[in-house]
Amino acid sequence: MESSRDASWVLKPETTCSSCAGTEPPISGRVFRNKPKARSMSTSAVPSCAEFRRTQSLHGPSPVTTFGPKACMMKNPKAVMHIQDPASQRLTWNKPPKSVLVIKKIQDVSLLQPFKELCIFLTEKNMIVYVERKVLEDPAIANDESFVAVKKSFCTFSEDYDDISNRVDFIICLGGDGTLLYASSLFQESVPPVMPFHLGSLGFLTPFNFDTYQSQVTQVIEGNAAIILRSRLKVKVVKENWEKTRPREKNAINANGEVESGRKTMQYQVLNEVVVDRGPSSYISNVDLFLDGHLITTVQGDGVIVSTPTGSTAYAVAAGASMIHPNVPAIMITPICPHSLSFRPIVVPAGVELKIMLSQEARNNAWVSFDGRKRQEIGHGDSITITTSCFPVPSICFRDPVNDWFESLAQCLHWNVRKKQSHLSSEEEEF
Amino acid sequence: MESSRDASWVLKPETTCSSCAGTEPPISGRVFRNKPKARSMSTSAVPSCAEFRRTQSLHGPSPVTTFGPKACMMKNPKAVMHIQDPASQRLTWNKPPKSVLVIKKIQDVSLLQPFKELCIFLTEKNMIVYVERKVLEDPAIANDESFVAVKKSFCTFSEDYDDISNRVDFIICLGGDGTLLYASSLFQESVPPVMPFHLGSLGFLTPFNFDTYQSQVTQVIEGNAAIILRSRLKVKVVKENWEKTRPREKNAINANGEVESGRKTMQYQVLNEVVVDRGPSSYISNVDLFLDGHLITTVQGDGVIVSTPTGSTAYAVAAGASMIHPNVPAIMITPICPHSLSFRPIVVPAGVELKIMLSQEARNNAWVSFDGRKRQEIGHGDSITITTSCFPVPSICFRDPVNDWFESLAQCLHWNVRKKQSHLSSEEEEF
Amino acid sequence: MESSRDASWVLKPETTCSSCAGTEPPISGRVFRNKPKARSMSTSAVPSCAEFRRTQSLHGPSPVTTFGPKACMMKNPKAVMHIQDPASQRLTWNKPPKSVLVIKKIQDVSLLQPFKELCIFLTEKNMIVYVERKVLEDPAIANDESFVAVKKSFCTFSEDYDDISNRVDFIICLGGDGTLLYASSLFQESVPPVMPFHLGSLGFLTPFNFDTYQSQVTQVIEGNAAIILRSRLKVKVVKENWEKTRPREKNAINANGEVESGRKTMQYQVLNEVVVDRGPSSYISNVDLFLDGHLITTVQGDGVIVSTPTGSTAYAVAAGASMIHPNVPAIMITPICPHSLSFRPIVVPAGVELKIMLSQEARNNAWVSFDGRKRQEIGHGDSITITTSCFPVPSICFRDPVNDWFESLAQCLHWNVRKKQSHLSSEEEEF
Amino acid sequence: MESSRDASWVLKPETTCSSCAGTEPPISGRVFRNKPKARSMSTSAVPSCAEFRRTQSLHGPSPVTTFGPKACMMKNPKAVMHIQDPASQRLTWNKPPKSVLVIKKIQDVSLLQPFKELCIFLTEKNMIVYVERKVLEDPAIANDESFVAVKKSFCTFSEDYDDISNRVDFIICLGGDGTLLYASSLFQESVPPVMPFHLGSLGFLTPFNFDTYQSQVTQVIEGNAAIILRSRLKVKVVKENWEKTRPREKNAINANGEVESGRKTMQYQVLNEVVVDRGPSSYISNVDLFLDGHLITTVQGDGVIVSTPTGSTAYAVAAGASMIHPNVPAIMITPICPHSLSFRPIVVPAGVELKIMLSQEARNNAWVSFDGRKRQEIGHGDSITITTSCFPVPSICFRDPVNDWFESLAQCLHWNVRKKQSHLSSEEEEF
Repeated sequence: MESSRDASWVLKPETTCSSCAGTEPPISGRVFRNKPKARSMSTSAVPSCAEFRRTQSLHGPSPVTTFGPKACMMKNPKAVMHIQDPASQRLTWNKPPKSVLVIKKIQDVSLLQPFKELCIFLTEKNMIVYVERKVLEDPAIANDESFVAVKKSFCTFSEDYDDISNRVDFIICLGGDGTLLYASSLFQESVPPVMPFHLGSLGFLTPFNFDTYQSQVTQVIEGNAAIILRSRLKVKVVKENWEKTRPREKNAINANGEVESGRKTMQYQVLNEVVVDRGPSSYISNVDLFLDGHLITTVQGDGVIVSTPTGSTAYAVAAGASMIHPNVPAIMITPICPHSLSFRPIVVPAGVELKIMLSQEARNNAWVSFDGRKRQEIGHGDSITITTSCFPVPSICFRDPVNDWFESLAQCLHWNVRKKQSHLSSEEEEF
Repeated sequence: MESSRDASWVLKPETTCSSCAGTEPPISGRVFRNKPKARSMSTSAVPSCAEFRRTQSLHGPSPVTTFGPKACMMKNPKAVMHIQDPASQRLTWNKPPKSVLVIKKIQDVSLLQPFKELCIFLTEKNMIVYVERKVLEDPAIANDESFVAVKKSFCTFSEDYDDISNRVDFIICLGGDGTLLYASSLFQESVPPVMPFHLGSLGFLTPFNFDTYQSQVTQVIEGNAAIILRSRLKVKVVKENWEKTRPREKNAINANGEVESGRKTMQYQVLNEVVVDRGPSSYISNVDLFLDGHLITTVQGDGVIVSTPTGSTAYAVAAGASMIHPNVPAIMITPICPHSLSFRPIVVPAGVELKIMLSQEARNNAWVSFDGRKRQEIGHGDSITITTSCFPVPSICFRDPVNDWFESLAQCLHWNVRKKQSHLSSEEEEF
Repeated sequence: MESSRDASWVLKPETTCSSCAGTEPPISGRVFRNKPKARSMSTSAVPSCAEFRRTQSLHGPSPVTTFGPKACMMKNPKAVMHIQDPASQRLTWNKPPKSVLVIKKIQDVSLLQPFKELCIFLTEKNMIVYVERKVLEDPAIANDESFVAVKKSFCTFSEDYDDISNRVDFIICLGGDGTLLYASSLFQESVPPVMPFHLGSLGFLTPFNFDTYQSQVTQVIEGNAAIILRSRLKVKVVKENWEKTRPREKNAINANGEVESGRKTMQYQVLNEVVVDRGPSSYISNVDLFLDGHLITTVQGDGVIVSTPTGSTAYAVAAGASMIHPNVPAIMITPICPHSLSFRPIVVPAGVELKIMLSQEARNNAWVSFDGRKRQEIGHGDSITITTSCFPVPSICFRDPVNDWFESLAQCLHWNVRKKQSHLSSEEEEF
Repeated sequence: MESSRDASWVLKPETTCSSCAGTEPPISGRVFRNKPKARSMSTSAVPSCAEFRRTQSLHGPSPVTTFGPKACMMKNPKAVMHIQDPASQRLTWNKPPKSVLVIKKIQDVSLLQPFKELCIFLTEKNMIVYVERKVLEDPAIANDESFVAVKKSFCTFSEDYDDISNRVDFIICLGGDGTLLYASSLFQESVPPVMPFHLGSLGFLTPFNFDTYQSQVTQVIEGNAAIILRSRLKVKVVKENWEKTRPREKNAINANGEVESGRKTMQYQVLNEVVVDRGPSSYISNVDLFLDGHLITTVQGDGVIVSTPTGSTAYAVAAGASMIHPNVPAIMITPICPHSLSFRPIVVPAGVELKIMLSQEARNNAWVSFDGRKRQEIGHGDSITITTSCFPVPSICFRDPVNDWFESLAQCLHWNVRKKQSHLSSEEEEF
């Protein structure tokens, strides 16, 4: 039954159509071949199979693959992707989680009490709590006698020295979108599920309110929470002439990079955006933008932002971008104060490969940063290659991917906040 | 059942990585399984499985589905979509094409000669040429003695009377983006492949230059052309109280709709956009926008545009939207001259269901149109429901989906047209 | 020669400076002549005469008119304007005001009680109250027994039949920006001072809260209130071929126009904006824009808005314009959904003459409206000529022109409403 | 005759009205008192005096100052400004010009030959040529044997050591908008007339083409050229705690500033804009903006631009501002990538006083620059005060202020560059 060549396009056997079921073979992309019904029929009481093909996937329905009576799409099984509907993505546990990394925004006194409370709660649940060493060095924590016993059970680490990427079962963030960006930066490959709490006002990345943390955390530990896979960008920076400019570091290999024959390569995973700008220079930046190897445009202005949909509501929106829901598989390219009046932001498919290099006529170096971190200079010949990563950040939803997003648009960006009374153009009867 | 060649792409426990999952065998995208020489090797001394999973799909790579040591995505086979990489979509023929619909922009004398030439060429190729009756009524064609013989062999039809949806193997458009929109409107279900020619300047939807039409058409007839599936929106308009307002039409069924118990339902497939605006009224429009059943915002202003990515470069871009590549599975929502300063356009996943209704406090009816056609009034209680259609327009590419798009951005929108000399902010050394 | 009170401000050779012109006495703005202790002293050891020339005018200081040692501006007394500083403009009465026009937004029940209260208050103050007839026809007013006595003393009029332009000493508006636009439309030449009350939320044009109307109105009657002169546009519409298209109306003269040899001329005073758009047509509009007789650009899109600074916060802001303070002598030109990505709004000096005509290649007529009223069709050959009027609307300020404006930006447009917590780009220390 | 109270508002005696002339006194603001003509009369064949009041001033007509039968504007002679119509401003010479400053963009080899030619031409005209020393140090000039004789007659100077502000009769700029900005920076008070040449493409500030320099320069020397007074901003920077942070410089006084009791004050004249931004910091900037002493808003984002109308087409336009003609007396405030979606740019009257200070909650210092120069850090307590300067830059027009501006909008910004063929929304008949 499933041997039909196109069967894999169908959702499942029962997604057949009342009008073609029965003796007919299971539907496939070629289903309409024998159905010369007038187009107006599709609106009729008898649902056509088109109605059944409608999936609930946030990616939209699978398109039919036959076009008129004789044309169809050439099959290329190697190029088929199988994607689970983003709206139905839920978290589960292979084994019960045992370790949790708690990330706290530093230098924010209002977070100290919630942080301590949460750690005590987790310890009582027999979780191994990972905390970054510098968080515990905060005097308010270091000098708190009552917290000593709890602290003792912590596993501590330092960002640049210890690799905890395989030791943490899930992550709790306290205190703002920056905490999730920081969590992301700690995991260059697979990222454990993240549960982000805001304390003051709602953030784009921090949907959970701390008030009910006990029940919320318990529920996540028990599994079966809705998650949103926030795509990240994999960024590769290649610096030419590394040897010449910094001879002593010739053989050094830093955390994210390696040096080889005078060329240094670094790699980053970014959750919001890669920003290339003029840095401290007062000159405009002048960079070439390549897509899948072709020069598509040159950016003259303050810089350019390459962002994920998650990042579209961060720096990109300030630079004029439209906002993109994080479940849209796309990359956004937004110029920063461009020379040209017509340089509108664009949205390209998530699967392209972008490359940024200094233009030949650039008189100054550019600077690049990754989620606002690791800022560095880019000279002639250096390149920044950007693709969508296959390591997204699985962020636990408060309600679901759609509602959480619209809630944050309203709360964080005051999107379409309106005043009831008209203040625009006048109308005849309105005086 | 799961032994099908594509099964390995489905989300399963074994989609883990040899370096992080002990004894389990490496699972990866089939394509690369035997190709450990992935180009990304150079960026990392120890390639993780992530490197192997990288596909070339324009949708981006399949994300890993294990998150840290113990978490993974809950499997839900029913919610898995199988998508062929948009970049690799090519046209093929089940049987040789025999009939072609030629669509010509009317009232444009510059198109007459090319139209005749093309028809003669197709006739000589033994194709059955379909032409709309009103095209032949143009005096310049009707009175052309030399064209009489050719005309005789045509199949003619009238838009509102004849259903040609199952008789046309492919379509050739002559003369502007409007011709493709018209072609789209003729096919409410499966659309034959379309080959759109521009005659003057390049259009967003008409990549082919007529100069070399003979070789180009021949190549398409022979099959194996790159196509882009331009997604359409399926729009359902429900008018309440149809009975009351138009009692005599009670039982009438028009081309796209049906009337039942005083309610009239119509359905449209749109390629560019659905526009809801204030029509001839000088009042602002006031409509509620629902997403998957939830009220997400109220639009006060001149109106709102719900567009496909294809439509993002049409009316939406004039209203301030970012441009979206047609291969991004998304729907764009763009307000037209909104009251609110903060009402930035948004991009939502292609799979959502949008609904537009008059707000309760609206003092005037709104008007809706579909790709600029079928303009009609919308009153209190009426609804416009919009989802992504499973019947895209398969448009033949001149080069490929990506290059064609950037070419039209430059040619049609002068996107980031630049002047070499700086005219922006001053710089110290620049005087 | 210097005895004329204002003469010293005029551009003359002697407007040089003691420190740069030898024996000549210091010449400066009269105000500061005896005040060498200008506040700017601290910034320069040797005060140049420039310091003395600084006026407090909102128009900025008078520029020096000598340029280096030998150049100066050619004197042209005929081209000198004398402008009173907008910031110091105050209302006074030649004789005590005796008549007041009360304008009430119709069809708004919430305004009935305030309206009656106000009328009784004014009658008790022995003011003659003018009210439009249709306001009194509202059943809630017509049937109110207790209001009969008060009504009897009213002077009533009808918009299109009675000319009250010379009988009203001042105007009180109740109920929204539309009331001020309506008041403006009643006075095509000199406009009496207007006192605009809002009842619900603050409007751009209605700064007064009704709660304290008694003291506020009393104060205005006693004189000496700050006013802002809101400039208006004088618009002349010339319709060619009037005779041909409407032969029977050949000799008719309507309220604002006259017909002569087949051409009809109408004139309007607008406070917010002239809008030229595509009207009910779904075609784009295509109009030529002339400035002082030169074609400066062609507008392709939904239309174009020519607005006063007052109108910059109305329809223009919805179409993307920057907001202009009403005391800036300027005209704003804003395209509505233009075809071209680079068609940014522009601001031109108040003294230019603009003209709008259909482009030769326009396939459809355009429509024009004036403050949202008097909508009419514009065909080939017709013209719309726009200049700044010398009859502004003197609107009484609640505080002063600057504070009132920023208050309404915040209240009406939520201008730069911010959320304290950062939600934009990430920063290293912020996690 | 001039004793009438309002007489100063009239342009001159002959600006009377045919309908009120004769025995009536010369018109004044109160002209309409005895004219109860219906408002529709104003459109009649008999011109009302309103028609005569229309001046050609770019600032617009003088508004009437009587409002209805009894109200008028309170006279305040001290607050009256006398402004010469910007459109009629022309250059003249008190004495024949003898000295000319030639400014050449450095490091641009294409300018060497034109520069030499121009200098020889000026020398032959017996002009004293001033050239900055570093221009002559360019090897291509220093080593040119044939140029030695010409060079000998030059007066040379160095920017920071020699004050040439009283020695130069006019200025010629060669090579781009930056040269005019540099010229402006050399003259902190009165600026000699400037004649700016572009060599490659037209600049906003450089309307003259070098091809016809001989006739053009000769004409200017002979006087009577149209000029545009480009307003500048006077910026005062006050740094508190100067003593503490830099004790050794305590008593130093630099070119533009002075130090007093630990506070340092500097003053600048800027032609384009003052930019306050985050400088090399990756933090957002957070500054308070005051207008006439009142806090009007807080800027959170990349920064803020305060620009002249001349500067509106420079950095401000890249940040999203509307373009303002240089003859509009205004100041533009444009946020750079603001946090808030609703932070639209605003245009305020030229006469206001703006002040920018770090917000109390700012975590980082900001940076300020003036026409892209003199970049410096701004800490807590420091202030930047901005007003319109009375020392504009008198720039010689190629044609006139209006035509030159629209020419540069088209050439430099490709403003509303259009494609003839429609690419926007589809229309029914357009296919």
